[in-house]
Amino acid sequence: MIKINRPTLLLDKQKCLSNINFMVNKAATKGLVLRPHFKSHQSHTIGRWYREAGVEKITVSSVVMAEYFMLDGWEDIAIAFPFNIHEINETNRLASRIKLHLTVCSENTANFLAKNITSPVGVYIKIDAGYKRTGLQSDNTREIDDILNVIKSSVNLNFTGFMVHSGETSKARSFEEVEKVHIDAQKKLAALKRRYKSSWPRMIISTGDTPTAMMMEDFKGIDEIRPGKFVFFDLTQMHVGACDPSQISIAMACPVISKHPERRELVIYGGAIHFSKEQLILPDGKAVYGQIVELTPNGWTDPLEDVYLADLSQEHGIIRPNKEFFEKTEPGKILGILPARACLSVNLMQGPVTLENEKIDHFATVKKEYGA
Amino acid sequence: MIKINRPTLLLDKQKCLSNINFMVNKAATKGLVLRPHFKSHQSHTIGRWYREAGVEKITVSSVVMAEYFMLDGWEDIAIAFPFNIHEINETNRLASRIKLHLTVCSENTANFLAKNITSPVGVYIKIDAGYKRTGLQSDNTREIDDILNVIKSSVNLNFTGFMVHSGETSKARSFEEVEKVHIDAQKKLAALKRRYKSSWPRMIISTGDTPTAMMMEDFKGIDEIRPGKFVFFDLTQMHVGACDPSQISIAMACPVISKHPERRELVIYGGAIHFSKEQLILPDGKAVYGQIVELTPNGWTDPLEDVYLADLSQEHGIIRPNKEFFEKTEPGKILGILPARACLSVNLMQGPVTLENEKIDHFATVKKEYGA
Repeated sequence: MIKINRPTLLLDKQKCLSNINFMVNKAATKGLVLRPHFKSHQSHTIGRWYREAGVEKITVSSVVMAEYFMLDGWEDIAIAFPFNIHEINETNRLASRIKLHLTVCSENTANFLAKNITSPVGVYIKIDAGYKRTGLQSDNTREIDDILNVIKSSVNLNFTGFMVHSGETSKARSFEEVEKVHIDAQKKLAALKRRYKSSWPRMIISTGDTPTAMMMEDFKGIDEIRPGKFVFFDLTQMHVGACDPSQISIAMACPVISKHPERRELVIYGGAIHFSKEQLILPDGKAVYGQIVELTPNGWTDPLEDVYLADLSQEHGIIRPNKEFFEKTEPGKILGILPARACLSVNLMQGPVTLENEKIDHFATVKKEYGA
Repeated sequence: MIKINRPTLLLDKQKCLSNINFMVNKAATKGLVLRPHFKSHQSHTIGRWYREAGVEKITVSSVVMAEYFMLDGWEDIAIAFPFNIHEINETNRLASRIKLHLTVCSENTANFLAKNITSPVGVYIKIDAGYKRTGLQSDNTREIDDILNVIKSSVNLNFTGFMVHSGETSKARSFEEVEKVHIDAQKKLAALKRRYKSSWPRMIISTGDTPTAMMMEDFKGIDEIRPGKFVFFDLTQMHVGACDPSQISIAMACPVISKHPERRELVIYGGAIHFSKEQLILPDGKAVYGQIVELTPNGWTDPLEDVYLADLSQEHGIIRPNKEFFEKTEPGKILGILPARACLSVNLMQGPVTLENEKIDHFATVKKEYGA
């Protein structure tokens, strides 16, 4: 284990590579295009691990992030985020250089694009299959038709297909809940395919979210998947059932700095600026920020029972441990902590460091250069 | 107003300078040393605004942050965070160059320091007056005596005084609640002063937290205050009663990217990687991430009634507005948002930009160089 002095986000590179290979193989087996979401890692280095595994198409969540990955050689990028009219100049720059796909969920935006885009781009129409964030209802065929008419009459807009992100699966707590969301989305997408396939024979159906990609086997009617979180996994994904604890590839290492017998709590150096304030609600209703693991010479153990990261201020974290763990743990000890949500920790820590002490690059360290 | 294309954290520099001057003047009037907490802004530039207002002593929350501010000329720095034995080397480097104060809350840590510190440092003993994060109970005079004995017999350790941080005031919802916390802490600190002043005539009593510093008038027995959040203020501080809305010096500007009449919601480009996931619980029990303001040519208005940032995913935010606001707001509109907790947004955004388009530097852009 590398020497830890202060909060350090560890990456088990072997687990991360296994996670990537698992998804690449699953997509191939199912005949799906894998267009992984790179917002989860935001790293050129990890992007290259995907490339070495055969991935050629990627998803990002912002125009600036698309530019960042374009500069590392990615030539087919989907921005799975509703097009923002204020970024038309940056979008045109990207569209002139790579195969770019944008996301649209209103006729107004489609019209704006038709008027202002200066190079060919693909357009996904975003469908809200139940997550209630962005997208059109699948039965809103009036507006879908309107958007498709705008696309049809535009020189530079090309219809890529329909995109769904079933983000609500990250709140599921059983296989059945994930399956229900998946089947429901599948039905809605099948109806759209039936309606539009004859006029748009090259259109695809694209779905996102890690739990569905990991846990489901039937992808009938789906052409492309865009999961991202599986590259690290985290406590949230584990509690959904999308991964085993042994597949989680990151853990935060934090020194214990004080011990409080009167309330059986340990305080660590490690707070909201390291973990984010994303909580996970456990089956018993307890809200936690992380679960504790023991660091080992080659990584870390599975999460310990009943030892939680229970509260966070800016740099402090409060651990509520069971009696045995409390008694044997003294200030100076380095704890491992699996975060509730890996991507937010990775962003705050500006990338992890591998167990072999290789610092992994992250967009956060350069994003000012992109005006972000 | 500067041109906004994507989430942009705005700083009203005049409000920020007023906030600094208000606190400098209040401390002077009350005969208190102001040792402001710089973790709130983490900026050399904003640090210099304090210096121009006459501030010479500062507080930080980590060893790396102390080094960062030392390199901008600060020579009297308190690290208001329990000493972490794994950072002894970095601490010794700092102690050899500036007047450094450390924080200790156990005899073990004091012993470690006595053995390993190589230059003179001041030592605060941290007292927990009720916040239940770190520190000794004020009536634990056995351990306090033990620590003081270690300090007395050490060449390099000098007793600075007792430090309290009443962080629970940020959860208060009335003047009376803040006052109760303040008076209770004052009583405990007065007892410590009575007990130890004759043996340690130069010891001081130091308290933190913005609500107390802003709202209280009686600082009897207190020698030093260490507030930080007042430099920006935020919704949390406003709801405690520590500031008026007009004193909040930062606001996030975000484009609206979609509109959803079926559930009366707007979606903005602006999510957990911009705001953090810190929530504020409103008096009616609603948990929100921010309140909306209208941007104006010279800044922004007070918060609008019943228009909230209600949910956040990584890059998306969901606004739940009243009917009137919903109807008049279309995608493309730039909204201003007062965050629940300013410091976490400032950290994620790597510093704000002033209304005059001056980018304010932030430790986040260079912290990798400090091994953090």
